[in-house]
Parts: sequence; C-alpha cells; structure tokens
Amino acid sequence: MRWSKALIPTLKEVPAEAEIISHKLMLKAGLIRKVASGLYNFLPIGFKVYHKIEKIIREEMDRAGALEILMPIMTPAELWIETGRWNLYGKELVRVKDRANREYALGPTHEEVVTDLARTEIRSYRDMPKNFYQIRNKFRDEIRPRFGVMRCREFIMKDAYSFDRNEECAEESYKIMFEAYKKIFTRCGLDFRPVEADTGNIGGSFSHEFMVLANTGEEVIINCPACGYAANREKAEGVSAFCGNDKEESKPLEKVSTPGQHTVEQVTSFLKKTSSELVKTLLYMADGKPVAALVKGDDELNEHKLKNFLKAAELVMMTEQEVEAATKAPVGFAGPVNLSGMKIFADNAVMKMKNFVIGANEKDMHYVNANFERDFKINKFIDLRTAGEGDTCVKCGQILSSLKGIEVGHTFKLGLKYSKAMKAEFLDEDGKRKPMVMGCYGIGVTRIIGAAIEQGNDENGIIWPMALTPYQVIITALNYKEEKVKEIADSVYEEFMAAGIEVILDDRDGSAGFKFKDAELIGIPLRITVGNKAVNEGVFEVKVRKSKEEFTLKREELLSKIKALIEKELTK
Amino acid sequence: MRWSKALIPTLKEVPAEAEIISHKLMLKAGLIRKVASGLYNFLPIGFKVYHKIEKIIREEMDRAGALEILMPIMTPAELWIETGRWNLYGKELVRVKDRANREYALGPTHEEVVTDLARTEIRSYRDMPKNFYQIRNKFRDEIRPRFGVMRCREFIMKDAYSFDRNEECAEESYKIMFEAYKKIFTRCGLDFRPVEADTGNIGGSFSHEFMVLANTGEEVIINCPACGYAANREKAEGVSAFCGNDKEESKPLEKVSTPGQHTVEQVTSFLKKTSSELVKTLLYMADGKPVAALVKGDDELNEHKLKNFLKAAELVMMTEQEVEAATKAPVGFAGPVNLSGMKIFADNAVMKMKNFVIGANEKDMHYVNANFERDFKINKFIDLRTAGEGDTCVKCGQILSSLKGIEVGHTFKLGLKYSKAMKAEFLDEDGKRKPMVMGCYGIGVTRIIGAAIEQGNDENGIIWPMALTPYQVIITALNYKEEKVKEIADSVYEEFMAAGIEVILDDRDGSAGFKFKDAELIGIPLRITVGNKAVNEGVFEVKVRKSKEEFTLKREELLSKIKALIEKELTK
Repeated sequence: MRWSKALIPTLKEVPAEAEIISHKLMLKAGLIRKVASGLYNFLPIGFKVYHKIEKIIREEMDRAGALEILMPIMTPAELWIETGRWNLYGKELVRVKDRANREYALGPTHEEVVTDLARTEIRSYRDMPKNFYQIRNKFRDEIRPRFGVMRCREFIMKDAYSFDRNEECAEESYKIMFEAYKKIFTRCGLDFRPVEADTGNIGGSFSHEFMVLANTGEEVIINCPACGYAANREKAEGVSAFCGNDKEESKPLEKVSTPGQHTVEQVTSFLKKTSSELVKTLLYMADGKPVAALVKGDDELNEHKLKNFLKAAELVMMTEQEVEAATKAPVGFAGPVNLSGMKIFADNAVMKMKNFVIGANEKDMHYVNANFERDFKINKFIDLRTAGEGDTCVKCGQILSSLKGIEVGHTFKLGLKYSKAMKAEFLDEDGKRKPMVMGCYGIGVTRIIGAAIEQGNDENGIIWPMALTPYQVIITALNYKEEKVKEIADSVYEEFMAAGIEVILDDRDGSAGFKFKDAELIGIPLRITVGNKAVNEGVFEVKVRKSKEEFTLKREELLSKIKALIEKELTK
Repeated sequence: MRWSKALIPTLKEVPAEAEIISHKLMLKAGLIRKVASGLYNFLPIGFKVYHKIEKIIREEMDRAGALEILMPIMTPAELWIETGRWNLYGKELVRVKDRANREYALGPTHEEVVTDLARTEIRSYRDMPKNFYQIRNKFRDEIRPRFGVMRCREFIMKDAYSFDRNEECAEESYKIMFEAYKKIFTRCGLDFRPVEADTGNIGGSFSHEFMVLANTGEEVIINCPACGYAANREKAEGVSAFCGNDKEESKPLEKVSTPGQHTVEQVTSFLKKTSSELVKTLLYMADGKPVAALVKGDDELNEHKLKNFLKAAELVMMTEQEVEAATKAPVGFAGPVNLSGMKIFADNAVMKMKNFVIGANEKDMHYVNANFERDFKINKFIDLRTAGEGDTCVKCGQILSSLKGIEVGHTFKLGLKYSKAMKAEFLDEDGKRKPMVMGCYGIGVTRIIGAAIEQGNDENGIIWPMALTPYQVIITALNYKEEKVKEIADSVYEEFMAAGIEVILDDRDGSAGFKFKDAELIGIPLRITVGNKAVNEGVFEVKVRKSKEEFTLKREELLSKIKALIEKELTK
C-alpha cells in the first residue's frame, strides 16, 4: 500500500474523553473514529488489525474441530423468554420491534439461538461432541460506554458453544477450547494469563478468563508465583496474613461509646485498635431476604462469593431504611449481637479471632472484646473475603502476588443451565432422553486490538506485535519527489510486495521528522529509510520499533534480512 | 472434514413455505435453518459457501484499490435525518432506541455513515479518489420475507462507496468497480449479465444491476443479441413492433355504448377491434397531484419511467374515489377527451396512431375513431411503456429478446445527492470548496448463494460451481466399518487433505444409495467411491456431479487427475 492511497488520518490532539492509552492511540493513529457513544468506525488500518486477529481465531477454532456458522443478530424474544433472560438482562439488552410488533434482542451472546439449533439438529449421542462458533457483531447497551473499543455498545465477538453427551465429554470439549485459546493468544503475540473466574450472569459450573497483562488493566489477577494458581479478584481465594489468635484469653464483653465514628478507620483509631481487631457486619438483601456477613476490618467482602454461596439471583446492600429497620440503629453501628431475623455468615479469616470490636446495633455505640459463641452465634464460616497480594496461596501456602490485566476471552463450563431450560435433549446409548451438557467460549475480537495496544506502546505511539500489525514494514521515502529516491523506494517496495511482505510505502510530501513520527505512532515493527544514504552509498537505515535498535543493510541483503526478522518475530 | 464430525442435516421433506428451488435445496441440503420470518442460521456448509464468496469479493475489492473498513450496524438517526431518509425509508428501516431513548437505524445501507466519515477525513482533492467498503450484516424489515436468503430481513452485503473530486474521476471509479464486479461474478463461476437499471430510492444519475441468469429469476432482462444492449425491465427502452399508421384518414369521433365492458380485452372484443387499436388512459397521483398517462392497449405502463419523468417522490394509482372525482365516471371508462385538472402524457408508441378507441369518462361508454389534436391535446409524448421481447432495439434496430435473472449486485453513480445533503466538501486545486462526487456499489453476498443454486441444480439437488462448493471432493466410503475400506478411504482422505484439496469423507453408516443421494443433494462437484472395486482391483469410480460423467482412476493417478480437474474448473 502507498500511504498516499491509504486512509491513515493521524491526529495531533485527541478528544479529552479518551481516558486510556489504547483509546487515545487508536484515535491518534487513525484506527477508529467515533460515530456515536460506544459506536465506532474501524478505519482501514484498524480493520487490517481486526482481520488478522479474526484469521488467527478462525484457523485455531477450525483446527480444534469447531464448526463455523452464522446466527442472526436479530434474535426472537420467545427464545430469551424460554431461559428467563428476556427479563433478567435488563437495559443492557438492545430490544427491537419489527413492523408486525414482534420483539427481538440484538444478540449480546447467542446461547438461546444456538441451543434452539442444537435441540432441533442434534438428536443422538452419535451427533456429539459438537462445537459451533461464529465471529460477528454483538450488542450491549452499556450504561457508560468508554475506553474506546474496550467497553463499547457494538463490538465483534467470537462466540462458541459446545454440546456433549455427558460431563466427562463436556470437560474434554472445555479442555480443547482452553488449549485453542492459549494458542490463539500466543499467536497474537500477547503476554496473557488464563485465570479462574466467576461464572456471573452466564451461569454454569466453572470458568476461566484469559487476561492480557497490562499495568493499565482494569482487572486484578491474584496469582501464585510458586504454583501458578491464578484467579480474578472476584473468584480468587487466599488466606489472610493475620488471622487472630484463638489461644488468647477471653475478656469480658464491654459496650463503649464511639460518638460519630462510623467507618472502620474512625472506630479503630478512636478505640486505639488496629483495623484487624475489628469485625465488620455487612447487611444485604439476597433475593429480598435479609442476611448479615462478617469480615475482618481490613478485609473486603467479595459479593460474588456471598451471592454464589447463597445461590441468589440478586444481592444488594440494604438501604439506610432497611438497615435501621433491621438493627434499630443508623448505618455504621450494625453488629451480630442480638441481631435477629436473618442468617449470619462469617468469613473463614475471622474464625480464630478473639476479643474483637463489633457494632452494637445502637447509635454511637460499639462492643469491644466480643467473641464467637459466647456473645453471638453464626450460621456458617465460609470464604467471603476478597483475596489480595500478600495472602497465602490456598493451593501451596506460598505468598500470592497480584497483576493487572484486560479480559479478552472467557470460557464457561455451562452444564445443563440452557439445555434444561430449553429442553435440548438427545437420545443416549441407553435409550434415554437426556439434556445436552454445554460449554460456551467467548473472545472479544475488537477488544484484543485495545488490549494489544495497552500492552505495547511507548511515548511515541503503538508498538504492534508482528502478528497483528497492519503492515510489517514501512518504507519511509525522504523527498519522494526526487527521482533517484522514488526509483529506489519503488524498487524496494515492489520487491517486498512480490515477496509477500506486508509493506507500506510512505510516499507523501513532508519532512523526515513528520514521517518518522507517523511511522512510530502507527507502530509498524520495522522501518526502512530511503534517503541520501540509500541514494549515495546504497545503504539503508533500518529501525526496529520495539527495541529502538538501528542498523544499516545493503540493497542486496535488504529483503532476506528483513524477511528473516519478520519470521523470527512471528514464530517466537 | 469427516461427515460424522460435520453438521450436515439433510432433509427428505421441506416446509411448504419454501416456494423456489434454491430455498428448498438450502433447507434440504442443510445449508440454512429458519430462526424466525426472514431470519436464518447459516449452518456449517452454508457458511463455507458464504466464506468463499466473501474471500473472492475481498480479494477483488482490494485489488481494485478499495479500502476495507467496518461501520457500526446501529447508525444514529441524526445522520438519516440529514438526508431525509429517516422518513423516506418507511417501515423497511429497522429502528432501535437505546437506554437513553436516542434513536438508531439498523443500517440497510450506509451512505449516511460513510459520507459522515468522508466529510471529516477527506479534506483535499489530493485525498481522492477513495473507495471504502465493508462486508457486513444489513437489515430490511421486508413486508413479506420469502425465498429463503433471496429476500430476508437480515443478510450480508458488501457495500462500497467512492468519493471523487469531479464527474470525470467519479466515472473512472465507477468503471473500476464495474470491472471488479465482472471479475467477482466470473470468479464465482456464475453466468451473469450486467444490465442498465433504474436508480430507485438510492438515487443518482445512472446505475447497473448484475444479474445471475436463471429461468426461475424474478427479474426480466431485456437484451439485444445483436448489439449487446441489456437493461432491466424497469429501465429498458424498446420500440413497439406495431405503432399505428398516421397516414390513415381520420374518421369522425363516435361515442359507443360498451355496457359492462371494463378491461382492454372486454372492450376491444366487444367492439371487434384488436387491443393495439385502443389507447389506455391510466390515472395517477404524483406527490398528491393528478396526472394521466396514455399507453397503447397491448402495452404496459412502466411506472418507473413516469415517476422519473415527473421527478416525483411518490407515484400511486388513483383510488376508485379519486377516479370518479376526476372523470365523473366509474373506473374503466377514463379517457382524455374533456379531461381537465391534470396534465396528460402519452407514450411515444401511440404518437402515430389514428382512429383509436378510448374511454368516454361516462359509465358504459367509449369513443371510437379518436384522434390526437382534433379530439384532445396531450402535454408531451415520452417513453412510458414497458419494453419487451420482440421490440426493436433503440440502439441498433434489431429485435430484442428477454432473459430472466436474479439481481446480485448493483452499482450506482450517485453524483452529489448525499454529499450535498450532508455537506461533504473538499478543497479543490483551485482553492474552492466543492461537494465530493460519489458512487456506491453493493453485492448481496448471501443472496449469491441462492442465485448460484437457482442456476445450478437438477432433480437430485445442488450443482455447485467449483469456486463456491463447500467441498471440492467427496469420498464416499461404502461399508466404512470394513477395515480394508476404512484403510483405503482414510489414506485417500489424508493424501487429499495434505495436498490442500477441500475434501469431505462420508464415513457414516448407511447404504450406498443413501450416501450417493446425500452427495448429489449437497452438490459436491467430484465424487470418489471407495467400495469393492477399490478394495479388490485398486480402481476408484469417479462421478462428475454436473456432467453426470463417470470414469475410473487407479490409486496412483487419483490425486493428480482430480487435482487437474479442480484446477481446470477453477480457471475456466
């Protein structure tokens, strides 16, 4: 491609609404343009990157035996009603009416449509395993679209759905996808980590997220450098460093005045205690029923864990009114002593604590020296806290650390959730009709572009991995109007094109500085300069975008050396 | 691919709603399944055919210098309002509201979005020509979706839009696309014809349709075997075979009773005349204003021609009430004599007629021996009739014939329609701001699948062109469970796979007849049978789907001969 024929509208300034680096650089480098909130045009080099990712995904999905299909974007409401998600999905689901007033959802995911397909076309255990996938636009009416392609309202997803005759086969299908995902992200040239994850709204029995590591990532990954355990913050388990001492002697329970002290910090500092000597009492409504959860003062309650334990569809913190009704005290003084009308669960980490501080269910009052059993009973100790850096690994006992990442893929072992709801059954070898065991597997195709940029950038712009770059090589011709320069630049360009190298020739007017700046901004891995040195000495300056390394090559070795560099990057 | 691992759910019976052969065969051969009215799942082999077409289109568009982009499916109402199409498009436009109550259209075409992109990113004459294209889902809420993928509500289109600095360059861009389209349909292995067409709702100055020829096609193409002139029925011009004789002597006008005779046939047979001796008077409302159009009794009025001549946005036949109000007579007796309050246009073909029959604007009455000027005046003679087989070619004077076809592509020279409405301007060399000159170019990607089947089928099923077939070769293994058969079939399969041939191995249980039937139904061009002859004599029976030709090959020549057959088909 000649730059003069391309559309690469690089920008000096970007709109203030671009908060994160990938969003800024995608606008600056001319990969995307905003059409409306959360809706983007992908411009030619943005599309090229997208298309490379699509190709890698398709090849690996095919290799893994998955079958590509195309399902409609307009999905009938009746299917969503069958699984209950028509109501459950809320405002995120984009709903459409046709001219006959029939309702549809613009698919944010396609479990319903594909399960409908499976229940019609898969009849016998002999027809399985089957794994159907598609790569298409998805729609989510995000409350606050932001971060460019990272959280937008229309995006491209690869979604796959496996159908198996039993749990064992389903786990095999899951493993095949897990391995395919590792290959896909490796081939994309990304530094990533698969982590255990919560199943959330999709449901099912277990799941993994594939995280691209980047300091700017929104997601926190808790991982164990010793044994390799890794999970996202919602799911991670860890043992708290300090867990109290149950050998300590019980002191008498004492009610103390804590006037105007609401937060853990306020109360403990007022009482000259540390926050790990206090137990927080958090009050929730789980599907409309009250419940109390106790965690250590310096721990954070993990709502996902509580919700999963309670098997609740909805878990929300009590409102001020609800707290006052339940505890007869304003917010900030709730405690388990004499708390009635609800179950009380406590985090494992408080199990061995003695003589701790708790709220007294009375305005401006707390208890000190509270103890389990003697002062109050709890229904069960469970894992409720959010694990963090410095915790002890539950698998191997070593110290956990944390990483930041961007979720680009998610695999779910769905089990029977959809097949039961939609009666997707097959005839098994034993002559019985059974529900199919499902898995589902998503990749945020357009999101990978943003994630790759979050991982690869510097002050000058994008640094593409060789596998995703819109062009592998840029030939920067200085003074392209000069006949000698044009001749040489064209000959290198033609030679590279013929050799199948993805090359762009910067044939525009403009200074060397202007052209170098644009080349760095759009992130092309290898730059070849055609300037005076090439004209006078037959020597070409090469610059490697990532390492900033510079060296020269002679005309005759140019193609072979550059080709070798590309190959090396693509296969490492 | 092994058939046992694939999903090719062939059917014996198809739903009665499938009216045309391609719809029937796409269901029967397991290419598609209906999700809702006008919404389909493309199953794996349907997707494979789609993907081959997409690849051919992408390669030829890139080769022609077009730049691939991706525009959102949800397109903001504001853009549609700018061009007036938000109202004009009516119910065919699928409209969506987001959670903030902002309105969007699910793009049926993307002139507005791409023109918005161009007016922001194209600034100077130096930035042109530019041609942007995308291959994506489109939405049209058809009043009556039918014919499977031929007229559905969600389909995949390749849409391209060119931007040029002046008319001359725009025509050059149009020509490049026209040639690219010819290459695309040729490479798809289709028998097609580009024809002149009406610009319809898209507007612009001229346009061509690309028609796949098929006896079952909905569109009529008028073409001249002598000079190559071809146009669709809406657009075609032709000179009527019999056009009257203005040398005939005028006879006196006479009002005659034609009790209960309404239609041309009834009136002429009652009066013992031929239908070419009568002039029909057709009454319309053009943007709310009445207008009369006269055509010869045996001709058909072409509403597109009348509408285009009047530059009307809307042209509808008068209702019964409107006819009665305008003519003071019931429907069936309208005529131009003493017809007031409207302009009267007559088709060129009646210009030389003398002593003809016309309605008398009175119940059960007609005039005979009516003549122009003496009995009534008309405002203008224009081309109003629908041309047909047997007419004389306006270009070369030879006799026109007609063909049937299916529209799979449409190119429009748009001119300034959208760039003026949306102020898409650039700075020209002379320092003046000018609107860009546009063209737009569509291909119905999923529709091509249906068209290819309409063109290639017989009583046994689909006959794919080699370029579009989901698999080039099917290996039909008879008694695959027999070890010897399995061994040979697997070895051929592995060899073909390694050689890059697209091959499917029918490894299912089932009789030879059952397997041959399915192979014919899904239309694979070459079938290799692995049966007793292969086991005992090392001889393989080959059947060519299209020619029904059968021959045998030895094991050692199997790959090379089959490969040569495929190559021959792909390059012819």
